Amino acid sequence: MHSYQEEFHPPERLLLGPGPSNVNPRVLKAMGAPLLGHLDPAFLRVMDDVKEMLRLVFQTGNIITFPVSGTGSAGIETAMVNVLEAGDTAVVGVNGYFGDRMAQIAERCGATVHRVETEWGYPLDPAAVRAELAKHPKVKAVGMIHAETSTGVLSPVAEIAEIVHAHDALLIVDAVTSLGGIEVAVDEWGVDICYSGTQKCLGCPPGLAPVTMSPRAEEVLTTRKTPVQSWYLDLSLLRSYWSNTRAYHHTAPISMIYGLREGLRVVLEEGLEARYQRHARNAAGLRAGLEALGLRLFAQEDARLNTLTSVRIPEGVSDTNVRGTLLKEHGIEIGGGLGPVAGKAWRIGLMGENSKPAAVLTLLSALEKILPQEGYEVAQGQGVGAAEQKLGEP
Amino acid sequence: MHSYQEEFHPPERLLLGPGPSNVNPRVLKAMGAPLLGHLDPAFLRVMDDVKEMLRLVFQTGNIITFPVSGTGSAGIETAMVNVLEAGDTAVVGVNGYFGDRMAQIAERCGATVHRVETEWGYPLDPAAVRAELAKHPKVKAVGMIHAETSTGVLSPVAEIAEIVHAHDALLIVDAVTSLGGIEVAVDEWGVDICYSGTQKCLGCPPGLAPVTMSPRAEEVLTTRKTPVQSWYLDLSLLRSYWSNTRAYHHTAPISMIYGLREGLRVVLEEGLEARYQRHARNAAGLRAGLEALGLRLFAQEDARLNTLTSVRIPEGVSDTNVRGTLLKEHGIEIGGGLGPVAGKAWRIGLMGENSKPAAVLTLLSALEKILPQEGYEVAQGQGVGAAEQKLGEP
Repeated sequence: MHSYQEEFHPPERLLLGPGPSNVNPRVLKAMGAPLLGHLDPAFLRVMDDVKEMLRLVFQTGNIITFPVSGTGSAGIETAMVNVLEAGDTAVVGVNGYFGDRMAQIAERCGATVHRVETEWGYPLDPAAVRAELAKHPKVKAVGMIHAETSTGVLSPVAEIAEIVHAHDALLIVDAVTSLGGIEVAVDEWGVDICYSGTQKCLGCPPGLAPVTMSPRAEEVLTTRKTPVQSWYLDLSLLRSYWSNTRAYHHTAPISMIYGLREGLRVVLEEGLEARYQRHARNAAGLRAGLEALGLRLFAQEDARLNTLTSVRIPEGVSDTNVRGTLLKEHGIEIGGGLGPVAGKAWRIGLMGENSKPAAVLTLLSALEKILPQEGYEVAQGQGVGAAEQKLGEP
Repeated sequence: MHSYQEEFHPPERLLLGPGPSNVNPRVLKAMGAPLLGHLDPAFLRVMDDVKEMLRLVFQTGNIITFPVSGTGSAGIETAMVNVLEAGDTAVVGVNGYFGDRMAQIAERCGATVHRVETEWGYPLDPAAVRAELAKHPKVKAVGMIHAETSTGVLSPVAEIAEIVHAHDALLIVDAVTSLGGIEVAVDEWGVDICYSGTQKCLGCPPGLAPVTMSPRAEEVLTTRKTPVQSWYLDLSLLRSYWSNTRAYHHTAPISMIYGLREGLRVVLEEGLEARYQRHARNAAGLRAGLEALGLRLFAQEDARLNTLTSVRIPEGVSDTNVRGTLLKEHGIEIGGGLGPVAGKAWRIGLMGENSKPAAVLTLLSALEKILPQEGYEVAQGQGVGAAEQKLGEP
């Protein structure tokens, strides 16, 4: 008997890691609808709906606004390959794992990449970006992570955009852990390329990377000297596929697009502002609870994400024991640290559907049971009580 | 009222185009299961099951055998970027649209690509491949399309593999429209990289590209001079993510992987041999019916696919009228021609779930009603009868 011969029934999980998050049942139901051909008029309407809703969520009028058929990481690569050519110069803000990944991907485009290194746990400093830009005569693009999933840190996009544009460069922003949970105002802030993933605050399964590109960046794409090195992620081809000409490129992942359509409907029914406030309120409750347990938050105080909270693992407490017990005995997933923070911090996501008081209280209650088993004494109700109080504030 | 404000209910379609095909309800149900984290032990077992089943379907023992998180087109790119570096030489057999695409993607890797051009409708000629290889001292890889989706033509892989290996090159094979419907024997034939898509004969929605890579190709990957230009499709990173080390790379598209697991279970429950025979039988029925209507098949007689049948549009008959009426009045999708065959041929897929007598008869019956409206006279039952007879043969 092979294990694949058995039907699979996933155990029930409360997904409070860095993503995926649990999704609204409406999204799963939408994905179960019968398939359509990707050039069927009925499916073309679905594509149009998705474009229209993504523009609202990104707060943009950009023509190029659609999901790329890959995960959030394909979004990073899409942003980089479309504007960077061999010999170009780029600057990337690196204040965590994903900034580093962005820099690596830019290097694979043949660009010379200058990193603005920032200590993990701190936001990217606009002054440091300005100083780096002043060192190089011709920077084509600056990349930064809006919400660093590895540290739980928010960086200031609008302020950096101004500096970047003063140097006539494009600003590329990773909004994987912010879009749909924290405001992302592409046009107002002056972002040239922004991408995200579906499995975080948009409340869908992983598999698609919503991308938007400003007319200024589109001009750079159109006038580049060499073809985009990735045929699959070439926005000049994808632009035609997603436009009214519907020039055949690849076969869109129909079921995932159905799901994204429904996920975006859920987002817009709630309203963006209400959604941001919900994420802020529940994150504040979680932070209050964790601090009441004596735990120290990892991210700098005024730069903490409302979608993902990073917290230092107390001295003497085993990372793997705690996460293992949470998963096995409580059905709760939280994330471990990445890179230099591995074993030193936990990452707790409250994203999309899971940004709710019940998730906050369930997790804190479980930690109150588990931490004493690790020799870290806390009283029952110590964290839950503080969170409840915070959540109850007007 | 925006159209996205309404719930979406796709119209019912019989998908007989080049893909996607309709999927087994078990697959859609599996995709609706609650999400797991991508590093959850329960999900890791799902990944292991998928790898094990894909090895059976590809008929290979290759360690690198897993789905890449993109559509079939991402499979082409994966194959190319992992072995080709700037300055390399490649040979690509071009006997249709997808051979041309493969060549284009190889060129975007910085390789010099020599095309073995073959008339559309005919298979790639092993002698022509041999002759092309003899012209170039150092060819790193040869690419070919096993089942050309644009023409409905099957090309001989095993024979070409022998020639390619005699020249110490790698053989890359596109099995998008064959895997799961027509035999693909990776190890026995000596294929070095093979990729497919999920939305054709594997009976799943589009969105994943199963890929397999031989130890010989893996050696080329490991010893390359420059990093793979695509970080997202870098098999040296994906290999670790899909191995027991589970080194974090991207977030696997959980729901799609659930669906692929169930789709592969359906394939193996039927049995590969039975499945190939089913595709052969139903394709023979369709061909008999079309020919009984006086239509001429496009692909060369002894090289016709059992998964996709191409047929010439008769003089005076409107491509768009016929396909439009099929879709609107009968809920049947068939494919138009691509590139030079646009407006000249239809492409009819009988793949996975849809390789069944009911699909053959439903389509032929509809054509018998529609063609006379276009001034092409056929009698009712003329095609259906011939198909029924052929389908009834032992």
